[in-house]
Amino acid sequence: MAIDAVIPFKPKNPKTRLSCVMEQEERETFAQAMLSDVIAAAQAGGCRPLLLCTAPYDRPDARTQVDPDGLNESLNRFLAASNGPVLIIMADLPLADGAAVSRLVATAADMAVVPGRGGGTNAIFLRDPSRFRVNYYGASFLKHLRIAADAGLSVEVVDSFRLHTDVDEKEDLVEVLIHGQGEARRCLESLGFSLSIECGRVGVERGAHKETR
Amino acid sequence: MAIDAVIPFKPKNPKTRLSCVMEQEERETFAQAMLSDVIAAAQAGGCRPLLLCTAPYDRPDARTQVDPDGLNESLNRFLAASNGPVLIIMADLPLADGAAVSRLVATAADMAVVPGRGGGTNAIFLRDPSRFRVNYYGASFLKHLRIAADAGLSVEVVDSFRLHTDVDEKEDLVEVLIHGQGEARRCLESLGFSLSIECGRVGVERGAHKETR
Repeated sequence: MAIDAVIPFKPKNPKTRLSCVMEQEERETFAQAMLSDVIAAAQAGGCRPLLLCTAPYDRPDARTQVDPDGLNESLNRFLAASNGPVLIIMADLPLADGAAVSRLVATAADMAVVPGRGGGTNAIFLRDPSRFRVNYYGASFLKHLRIAADAGLSVEVVDSFRLHTDVDEKEDLVEVLIHGQGEARRCLESLGFSLSIECGRVGVERGAHKETR
Repeated sequence: MAIDAVIPFKPKNPKTRLSCVMEQEERETFAQAMLSDVIAAAQAGGCRPLLLCTAPYDRPDARTQVDPDGLNESLNRFLAASNGPVLIIMADLPLADGAAVSRLVATAADMAVVPGRGGGTNAIFLRDPSRFRVNYYGASFLKHLRIAADAGLSVEVVDSFRLHTDVDEKEDLVEVLIHGQGEARRCLESLGFSLSIECGRVGVERGAHKETR
């Protein structure tokens, strides 16, 4: 049976740290494009995507569930009600691919985790979700390791830059333009973003567009 | 026979972008600690480290060779003179481990590569070094893919955040304090660095130390 892949998603006004280069509607479009890539990666890795949305949102390629509560509360409610193994994967990982998801869910440990940049947690696979609870925000990766240790769960840290690369800020768009192969990259290109190289450093620029703030 | 792992290294005044939090001598100590971790990872991955240094530098755990020329020139000279397979791995990857190096050198392709953050190239494995030449700086990852394509080499991009995480700036020290398990982490701790959490973001702080610039 396919593993449930829970993807928390905020359809309205997401990715506010990209406000300097994208209007709200563009950020919503880009967030949906990144989500498409995550859904495709989860499916390619043998999982059944389920969106846990803060507001009503529909799409043909995934089931959805609405819970306007905070990320921790809604995920922990979901985990407590789950019977089989669960993958929690963030919606802002546009480099995710099926191979990385497969490595995660193939772990021999009770839990497999991929850290995000800066101490966050980008993906967690739980063989028995009832034995774990999430605690996002701040240094969540270290918090999650402690929660697992307290629960007596064995943990594998999966070494993947594709799942490690979350997209929050303008600088992160470089990674999408270099390594992205899906909807998020196409979305950035259609919005006029391209790589720029100044003083040997790689950045992004946006053609014919003024910074909005 | 063990694979040569070439590690370019600058012993004098390295990592200048860390000047805001470390004096020159501290940067030199820290760069050597990161190098220790890379040497250990290369050895654990079945490789024989060889330091390609810009100035004379000795250590007991690796052979050294001095070439004061630029990175591209000295590496390309080395590649042209090599007979067997070669791994080129940067010295500022303190999260590197044997498992990641093993995945790289076990590729079935002619070449395996791990991108750095921001378009760089952190590690390249070449089955036949004479067919390739490096071109670092700027978006070197894309340049290296093009050079490989022009030479008719098949390429595997290895998905590792441990080899993807190069340490150049203060923000990167967070990754060492969270995921490091070797000398670089111990070095940072001995210099008084620790994780700090402000407004939910993870950073580093340095106890009883004034910023030097």
